[in-house]
Amino acid sequence: MTVQKALVVGTGLIGTSVALALREKGVAIHLSDVDAHAVRLAEELGAGREWTGEEVDLAVIAVPPHLVGDRLAELQKQGSARAYTDVASVKADPIADAERLGCDLTSYVPGHPLAGRERSGPAAARADLFLGRPWALCPRPETDAGALRRVRELVSLCGAEAVIVGAGDHDAAVALVSHAPHVAASAVAASLAGGDDVALSLAGQGLRDVTRIAAGDPGLWRRILSGNAFPVAEALDRIAADLAATASALRSGDLDDVTDLLRRGVEGHGRIPGKHGGPVRDFAVVQVVLRDRPGELARLFNAAELAEVNIEDVRLEHSTGLPVGVAEVSVRQEDTGRLAEALRFHGWHVPPVPGGCR
Amino acid sequence: MTVQKALVVGTGLIGTSVALALREKGVAIHLSDVDAHAVRLAEELGAGREWTGEEVDLAVIAVPPHLVGDRLAELQKQGSARAYTDVASVKADPIADAERLGCDLTSYVPGHPLAGRERSGPAAARADLFLGRPWALCPRPETDAGALRRVRELVSLCGAEAVIVGAGDHDAAVALVSHAPHVAASAVAASLAGGDDVALSLAGQGLRDVTRIAAGDPGLWRRILSGNAFPVAEALDRIAADLAATASALRSGDLDDVTDLLRRGVEGHGRIPGKHGGPVRDFAVVQVVLRDRPGELARLFNAAELAEVNIEDVRLEHSTGLPVGVAEVSVRQEDTGRLAEALRFHGWHVPPVPGGCR
Repeated sequence: MTVQKALVVGTGLIGTSVALALREKGVAIHLSDVDAHAVRLAEELGAGREWTGEEVDLAVIAVPPHLVGDRLAELQKQGSARAYTDVASVKADPIADAERLGCDLTSYVPGHPLAGRERSGPAAARADLFLGRPWALCPRPETDAGALRRVRELVSLCGAEAVIVGAGDHDAAVALVSHAPHVAASAVAASLAGGDDVALSLAGQGLRDVTRIAAGDPGLWRRILSGNAFPVAEALDRIAADLAATASALRSGDLDDVTDLLRRGVEGHGRIPGKHGGPVRDFAVVQVVLRDRPGELARLFNAAELAEVNIEDVRLEHSTGLPVGVAEVSVRQEDTGRLAEALRFHGWHVPPVPGGCR
Repeated sequence: MTVQKALVVGTGLIGTSVALALREKGVAIHLSDVDAHAVRLAEELGAGREWTGEEVDLAVIAVPPHLVGDRLAELQKQGSARAYTDVASVKADPIADAERLGCDLTSYVPGHPLAGRERSGPAAARADLFLGRPWALCPRPETDAGALRRVRELVSLCGAEAVIVGAGDHDAAVALVSHAPHVAASAVAASLAGGDDVALSLAGQGLRDVTRIAAGDPGLWRRILSGNAFPVAEALDRIAADLAATASALRSGDLDDVTDLLRRGVEGHGRIPGKHGGPVRDFAVVQVVLRDRPGELARLFNAAELAEVNIEDVRLEHSTGLPVGVAEVSVRQEDTGRLAEALRFHGWHVPPVPGGCR
């Protein structure tokens, strides 16, 4: 293990979660924050102890994007670590700051773990925050191999998956998958401000889901968006154009244009990988009607195991008081037939699998 | 109880869910659908038995909006029921169809339960789909008091809350809180279609929430949107204008305009009421770290069964290539401690349950 001692600068949600994750793997953690209270709280949570200037193998800079360059320059001037990374949600600006401030770019690997929670601060931290999540790394041609190895080890110790990507591509990607969707959610939520109470009383879970992230802190999001202004503007223009075109198609009765957007939406939605950032895979869902009796699910999983089918996901649709429920079992496309056959053999009712497989 | 026998016409998601909910309350249910397979599946799910023409107290017409008028006319011609309602998500058009077809408007109470899922078909139905949800009713001056009483009883038996509203106001309201947000979610999802795999691999829970409803059936939504075209177009224009203005503000650095939209978004989001009544069952989620080996889930369910804990739902968070995944197991609050203990005893890592239970 090349990371035995690490420094976490900034003991907010992300920094403290990194510290907790590394502690679980036996890494000695030093903590630093301009807010003495945040450091003390992180210490109390078992995240490590306050830094007193000792040299470490790796420094993790977990401060807001516009402060990353300054902090990196300070730490490098003190010779604090053998390698440096940050966790800011945009990458081009912090790198430009670091260059401008004359930082050593060979020992700095810009990073961004794609993980977060609605809540912030050290008290919201959790050691498993990064488990299975993607963690973008933006090494550059001049990046030292030893520094990259240390930062990759950090990612792996946190249980995350490294995604190597250029800084520009990273920023365009988060504009697409995070920043523009945030603004779109805000615009939908803003449109409700003028609705009357009866209208709002008809709101459902769909609206709550679409607008959930619009509850985020406007000050924080103003900084995030301004740090990635042009890629976000580009993504927003495309969304705005689709919406305006759909409005006009609805008015003129060009329903094929409306259907086209809805279809592209289904397609785009299907490209979002599973919850923990796994690769996009094409699973099929087998529905099984279950009797509500003890051990039914264990029997189902045993039957799948006997048929040598790996179950990738399962959802229970289960109404208390009903004699039956439906299990939705996700398996590889090519396994659907074998699973359905095995389950029917064991007496379950398995409706035909949509898409033609039986 | 004035509704003892009911007919559900259209055994899709909503119709079958109504049938299941009424069955739980002891109502005799007759089922009818143009698709014989859908009726059979609904029967197998315990939703009722196939209708053979007997007269009922209430007929629930759960067919697409553009077919409501036709179906109502047919049923009334046969004298099938003492009262009629529908569940279409728009109200002005079906009422106009009914008038045009010379239907009896005294026994017909137009309705719309605000509940749904991304998935459709009887297999996705659940008896608790309407629990605590608003259910719009649009009675008219000529509506018979007995018919309204029966339909109100339906709403109440399904555990929903009746919201009396005019058909025009209803359609404007659902444009605002449901239809335009659906199109916005589709446009965000559609913007992903052009992203590369690396970009998509950085997607997180926020994006999944914003775009979840975009997975809905394009054919169904085309009909919904075309049945409410002008109110939806108006709402979409406002959202599109906000997005285009934000894009231009980001390009010119007018960050106060960006912050203004974000603030209005927070305000609008705050106007969305909480889940009406909320679920009666308060489930807690126990997270279990699973090794990626055959039979792991079967062992988990066996262990839960031995501990006499009923598993209400389970989600797998599972990244191929990672040696571990996380299962989120929903159980009754009071069972969390026993389940966590049993699973730890069998060697699984179970993080502390949020909320303090161990």
